[in-house]
Amino acid sequence: MAEKELLNQRKKVLTIDSMNANVKTVEYAVRGPIVQRALQLEKELREGVKKPFDEVIKANIGDAHAMGQQPITFFRQVLALCLYPDLLNDNKFPDDAKDRARRILKACGGRSIGSYTASQGIDCIRQDVAHYIERRDGGISCDPDNIYLTTGASDGIVTILKLLTAGEGRTRTGVMISIPQYPLYSAALAELGAVQINYYLNEEKCWSLDISELQRSLQAAREHCNPRVLCIINPGNPTGQVQSRECIEDVIRFAAKERLFLMADEVYQDNVYAEGCAFHSFKKVLFEMGPEFSNTVELASFHSTSKCYMGECGLRGGYMEVINMDQEVKAQLTKLVSVRLCPPVPGQTLMALVTNPPQPREPSHAQFMKERVATLNVLAQKAKLTEEILNTVPGIKCNPVQGAMYSFPRIILPERAIKEAKEHGQEPDMFYCMRLLEETGICLVPGSGFGQKEGTYHFRMTILPPADKLKILLNKVKEFHQQFTKQYS
Amino acid sequence: MAEKELLNQRKKVLTIDSMNANVKTVEYAVRGPIVQRALQLEKELREGVKKPFDEVIKANIGDAHAMGQQPITFFRQVLALCLYPDLLNDNKFPDDAKDRARRILKACGGRSIGSYTASQGIDCIRQDVAHYIERRDGGISCDPDNIYLTTGASDGIVTILKLLTAGEGRTRTGVMISIPQYPLYSAALAELGAVQINYYLNEEKCWSLDISELQRSLQAAREHCNPRVLCIINPGNPTGQVQSRECIEDVIRFAAKERLFLMADEVYQDNVYAEGCAFHSFKKVLFEMGPEFSNTVELASFHSTSKCYMGECGLRGGYMEVINMDQEVKAQLTKLVSVRLCPPVPGQTLMALVTNPPQPREPSHAQFMKERVATLNVLAQKAKLTEEILNTVPGIKCNPVQGAMYSFPRIILPERAIKEAKEHGQEPDMFYCMRLLEETGICLVPGSGFGQKEGTYHFRMTILPPADKLKILLNKVKEFHQQFTKQYS
Repeated sequence: MAEKELLNQRKKVLTIDSMNANVKTVEYAVRGPIVQRALQLEKELREGVKKPFDEVIKANIGDAHAMGQQPITFFRQVLALCLYPDLLNDNKFPDDAKDRARRILKACGGRSIGSYTASQGIDCIRQDVAHYIERRDGGISCDPDNIYLTTGASDGIVTILKLLTAGEGRTRTGVMISIPQYPLYSAALAELGAVQINYYLNEEKCWSLDISELQRSLQAAREHCNPRVLCIINPGNPTGQVQSRECIEDVIRFAAKERLFLMADEVYQDNVYAEGCAFHSFKKVLFEMGPEFSNTVELASFHSTSKCYMGECGLRGGYMEVINMDQEVKAQLTKLVSVRLCPPVPGQTLMALVTNPPQPREPSHAQFMKERVATLNVLAQKAKLTEEILNTVPGIKCNPVQGAMYSFPRIILPERAIKEAKEHGQEPDMFYCMRLLEETGICLVPGSGFGQKEGTYHFRMTILPPADKLKILLNKVKEFHQQFTKQYS
Repeated sequence: MAEKELLNQRKKVLTIDSMNANVKTVEYAVRGPIVQRALQLEKELREGVKKPFDEVIKANIGDAHAMGQQPITFFRQVLALCLYPDLLNDNKFPDDAKDRARRILKACGGRSIGSYTASQGIDCIRQDVAHYIERRDGGISCDPDNIYLTTGASDGIVTILKLLTAGEGRTRTGVMISIPQYPLYSAALAELGAVQINYYLNEEKCWSLDISELQRSLQAAREHCNPRVLCIINPGNPTGQVQSRECIEDVIRFAAKERLFLMADEVYQDNVYAEGCAFHSFKKVLFEMGPEFSNTVELASFHSTSKCYMGECGLRGGYMEVINMDQEVKAQLTKLVSVRLCPPVPGQTLMALVTNPPQPREPSHAQFMKERVATLNVLAQKAKLTEEILNTVPGIKCNPVQGAMYSFPRIILPERAIKEAKEHGQEPDMFYCMRLLEETGICLVPGSGFGQKEGTYHFRMTILPPADKLKILLNKVKEFHQQFTKQYS
């Protein structure tokens, strides 16, 4: 039995030491250890284990429907019609929903959304997207050929970063990302082996972006890599700020001067709540700055069906628009996306509806508008509520939640708590959030998962729980923070 | 206006020379230049341009619904119910469809399939998959924790290859793939910068796999890289063979001895047509070979909702099962998939239905079985028809289409045609397929897109067009081949 013994001693081919080293460096806090623990606590609660709380409230992720937000009726009607076209004979469905469904089905091979589509996405949907962008941007033209439908915004962002990553050592592509950032960026850069270049948002000025900080960060990076990309998230995740038009102009001018490819993550474009704030797309500002900018600066802008008033995260829909992309590179992009065949067709369909919703004279218009406005109004109220309650807590300082779906308050932690955390080998805000979770069932993400200025601590909390629950949650955080501070002072 | 001029001279950041070099080497023939040309021809036909044909027939891709295959009613009913739960009150839907929908919705956050799910996929669906695998494999146990739901099989395959790719130069991971292969593999390896190791299937023995050829290929590769992975596609794509149980045992023994991680692409597991052939999963064979194999050999098996009798390509559903994966690596895998949040939930839902279809006493069982059997029977007839007609053509030699959805016949090309192709800078079978497309509107993929022994030429043709159309198509190919041969002889 020599062979048998030999086989039993066979070492694994794939071990932690022999695996892809880049993958090991990937971190993704939004679904990290604290969320693992939250899932475990939920399981324990179901099994009847006694806890100081009855339910786990997950305010860690922008998952609107999971927090009770209702889907838009019209969108779901059209999706049901597309998936089960027998319903086209059903009187319960409005005519405009049926028209939309027929149009999508006609564009599908064999009139089934079970067929593959063009890899870039269904033609007529890319036209819908282009018209949407033109309306949004006050008539600036949009070529459907520049639109790529995606499997959520993350898919598009990773694809563009992939194209841009090249070189070795000091010529390796560097990518500027805001700190705090949405950790998809750091995760994608780690996986691709690109160089992450941090620029810090100004917490004192409501997380605004200073060009001098971009300059500092770029200068420093040029010592050790080849900075080629500047990523902006607007409205901000996790920081909830909305960029002014002026700031966007400055950023574009900076990217033009410093030869940076701009990536604008604009998935929260409908989520603007604060008075005096408005969403300005990078595309629009770029084109209004004149041909010397609009003919030269390379820009990719990303959108998603997961946020705004739709919150349809599970359908994994999105698009990207690429502007001034070199034609040969664009052909490479089209080839690259073709390997994955096509984005999920239900997500593509949803994107068609988001960008071409019921029109004023159509039967579903009134209900659509009512649902859309109600959802956005509730979000605006919850943004305000969150900021207000958090700012009543001594030791918590929360900037206005101008947009997006998150607050990212600063928390002052006692020295003794910081020391104890470090003894546990934990970041102090992880230690804080873990304690919060164990004592109250509230699941937040520590600021260290997004990046923050050294010596400062934060957490990210979504504003998505229903208003009554959100109030309870905020008051529990308040109580916890006071006790925690007292215990460690 | 110095700034303006400066900007106008600004060179692009991202050019073909400065982009990711790995991406440039990616090729994907299934959606390559011939398909681009087919789309263009379709457009010209729509615009009224005269052609020697009335329609383009795309036999280039395994896209069943696009070729007229009907979706399974029960699957679409449940999907419609999940997307628009108001329909749960509708009498037109059978109770078992409603039960399935309620179960899925209950497992979704906020009872909406618009919520994110666990990154590995919804728990109860992974249980469905595990039970399906246990039934398929005669009771060999399957742990739902080893199941990862995916965005189609391609997503899973790329993810596992990503984990496995490490090292530099002579220590770089080498991955053994069959030639002919499905070009997702070569594309993924190019993108990851892993080393592609070719082993040739034996066309003379109905595309069977010889262990001596694996041995030859492995020995040669060890000179210049670190071979760690062996990929098998069974039933075969593009070659349509079904592996014997004995051959699978030999492959497993080879992988055990040579310390190779096994990747089994089993997306055509229901597509077995030839008498005397049966699908044997690598998992089952591995476990039946005894603990010295089943406790040691690392295996990842992939499945999809896109093939078999479902053909739901557009929904992008799939799963992978990982066996004997190192626990630390598995934690890394779980982390890695979390960055993309979750697979599309409609695709996950469909996978639940595929692995847990209507049971004998449920109201939808009879219709489900009727539809399933009819679809598979028609495919079996078309497999036979394809082989038979192609083999009537002098200069075309087609192996039996034992399984999957493709024929991959060898074509004998006259020397003068080969010469002319080379003068055009084209592969001879690309030259042949382009001519076929221009003259008949039939879109096939040249064998060179999949790899083939030097000096041999092939094309891949799906068996999916409706039987009457398939017959016409095959006879047109016959006529074309005869004329082409005559013209160049």
